[in-house]
Amino acid sequence: MPLHSIDAARLTGRIRELGEIGRDPQGQLTRLAGSDNDRAGRDRLVAWIKMAGLDVAVDRIGNVFGIWRDTGNSGEAPIMLGSHIDTVINAGIYDGCYGVIAALEVIETLKERGVTPARPIVVAAFTNEEGVRFAPDMLGSLVYAGGLSVETALATVGTDGAVLGEELARIGYAGTVEPGFLKPHAYIELHIEQGPVLEREGTAIGAVENLQGISWQRVTIDGVANHAGTTPMAMRCDAGLAAARVGLFLREHIARSNALSVATIGTMCFEPDAINVIPSRAVFTVDLRDPDEDRLQALETVLADFLVRIGEEEGVEISVERLARFQPVAFDQGIVAAIEASAHARGLKSRRMTSGAGHDAQMIARIAPTAMIFVPSRDGISHNPREHTDPDDLIAGADVLLDVVERMVGSR
Amino acid sequence: MPLHSIDAARLTGRIRELGEIGRDPQGQLTRLAGSDNDRAGRDRLVAWIKMAGLDVAVDRIGNVFGIWRDTGNSGEAPIMLGSHIDTVINAGIYDGCYGVIAALEVIETLKERGVTPARPIVVAAFTNEEGVRFAPDMLGSLVYAGGLSVETALATVGTDGAVLGEELARIGYAGTVEPGFLKPHAYIELHIEQGPVLEREGTAIGAVENLQGISWQRVTIDGVANHAGTTPMAMRCDAGLAAARVGLFLREHIARSNALSVATIGTMCFEPDAINVIPSRAVFTVDLRDPDEDRLQALETVLADFLVRIGEEEGVEISVERLARFQPVAFDQGIVAAIEASAHARGLKSRRMTSGAGHDAQMIARIAPTAMIFVPSRDGISHNPREHTDPDDLIAGADVLLDVVERMVGSR
Repeated sequence: MPLHSIDAARLTGRIRELGEIGRDPQGQLTRLAGSDNDRAGRDRLVAWIKMAGLDVAVDRIGNVFGIWRDTGNSGEAPIMLGSHIDTVINAGIYDGCYGVIAALEVIETLKERGVTPARPIVVAAFTNEEGVRFAPDMLGSLVYAGGLSVETALATVGTDGAVLGEELARIGYAGTVEPGFLKPHAYIELHIEQGPVLEREGTAIGAVENLQGISWQRVTIDGVANHAGTTPMAMRCDAGLAAARVGLFLREHIARSNALSVATIGTMCFEPDAINVIPSRAVFTVDLRDPDEDRLQALETVLADFLVRIGEEEGVEISVERLARFQPVAFDQGIVAAIEASAHARGLKSRRMTSGAGHDAQMIARIAPTAMIFVPSRDGISHNPREHTDPDDLIAGADVLLDVVERMVGSR
Repeated sequence: MPLHSIDAARLTGRIRELGEIGRDPQGQLTRLAGSDNDRAGRDRLVAWIKMAGLDVAVDRIGNVFGIWRDTGNSGEAPIMLGSHIDTVINAGIYDGCYGVIAALEVIETLKERGVTPARPIVVAAFTNEEGVRFAPDMLGSLVYAGGLSVETALATVGTDGAVLGEELARIGYAGTVEPGFLKPHAYIELHIEQGPVLEREGTAIGAVENLQGISWQRVTIDGVANHAGTTPMAMRCDAGLAAARVGLFLREHIARSNALSVATIGTMCFEPDAINVIPSRAVFTVDLRDPDEDRLQALETVLADFLVRIGEEEGVEISVERLARFQPVAFDQGIVAAIEASAHARGLKSRRMTSGAGHDAQMIARIAPTAMIFVPSRDGISHNPREHTDPDDLIAGADVLLDVVERMVGSR
């Protein structure tokens, strides 16, 4: 099969163009789900879908689809490509948008080349992937995969008190088709890595074979508040020092066990939080992730055991609240192999990898063979205006997506 | 010298009575300096002073004095006894008040016994010792000792926007005599320990020979915010973990060096403080105390060196801001020995000790030989409604104060 390429200028131009929609007067980019800015972004996407000659569909939870089909293939399950175009607050321009625009780019490229695919090819933009305004994140794809009822999802109340269903109706994206109306033959999501691995290794393509399981817990340590000057070190029950031991222990444990696990203490709060009072309470979150469910469970057990130990050693009371738990998701090995094969054929360095972040792909994996393609993120930075991927990397990722789609869809 | 005793019922009754002044409808006790509640407490104290037949004086910064003098001794420098009656928010009833009421009790006891002291004896209640509403703490005694000008102190703006001088005038305690108008021959302050040492040892009397030096610093650690899922442990610059090392290091260092130093990290703040983001910044305070200036300086150096080391090891930037620094205060060995001698004569177990907290005594030590007497605090708790000292301990402390005063003042 000869190597083709997508239209690099159109791809990067559209990413920049979409990235200008939803900026405030200070230049900050924010397109929260269901907002006026989200509508403006959706309108632009729909315009591009129509320009490409595709059918537009919007389902009841607001997921937007551009469907390329004809009478010769409309009976077949489609190849679905996509991601999301909602953003976090003060976002970069690549997260999600790159996958949606590249999906459309792949379809247009094939269409312009006169390819006659054996299956429909669909670009999908899922509602509220970021979860900033409405919980949970990946809501649109979760509903699409049947993991949450449309009614429940539409009734979700946002951080600003708005109801998702009313906001979708207000901005004109409360569609009529049922989520899940197209059952994909396969789903492929192209995305920036949002981590530092590819860039540091000089690797262009990540063939994402699984997605980490996530364990979120909130730990509360109760010690005894006492005067910082009058209480000898040996007589203290310092909740802050007990908390300090947890993060350092997890880091050491993971380093010792040489595992792919990651552990993060991202939030920390002391009480009474006074300079001259020994902390009576420390409340913090523990984010544990591992691509292997057994290892993730083992890590949870190690943490629980350690908390018992420091409870005894530090003379503190410890309670734990589970905030979230997702099992790891394994992607389709056939698609992953196809991604690697395309990278190899193009002379691009690739590696198999794990997604540490959640993506719509993890939801669609419930109903279709799924994989993801990652491209490098400069400094691993995402959810930030400094989010950046070099144009060459953007183009390489889209070309690999083109190859994989063309190989999987077949022609008539 | 035969052993006499103060009036135990009057002492404990007045402590309880003053402790009822300034309670809110929920029963919380709060008499912030210059407040209406402070006025009510001062009024009660002044009434007691007048009942005892003492002269009342109020200086320009609102310090209240009850002066027992006669024509035979009014030319001599007085023995001054005292503490403060302002409180923290939601306070106990002993901190400060015990020292003031016991001082008055000692004077009344001597007076009732017909003692004719060779020097005047004065009870002092200093303004704004707690420093909750107006900064700095120990303001009244600092001004009295000449460490801060009256004008500057009166212009102090409180946390509620009130001006101290205006508040003192409003509540009727803007006096006319100059702070420092009486230069004490000696100053003795009786106080609850506010720490656990005496109670745990079963010791009744602390002969306080010095007061810790205090070093307060704010440390800011800047790492790199990254995604908690996508950033391998080895590629992180986690400001939170770097901060965690500091408190644990200080505890280990002090345990190793077997010093009297104490180190406390009482406040901690993460940024962005999100469950799934590696902390980019940790801001925390370090409270270091030691009764020896050389050791306190050495501890500061050890901390500074360690911060340099973790800056390198953790790949973080660290900056330090000095918030406060007080040198240790050495009290008068003669008074300390007199306290020990009294305890011994009364069969009370005593020990020399260091005050870990700040007290008015540290200010008055600038202008007069000074020492403090500590009595046990149950569970070491203070600045809290659970603050408690057993009546027997309160009485024992006041009796020791009585002995020391009687021994020092001499009779005519």
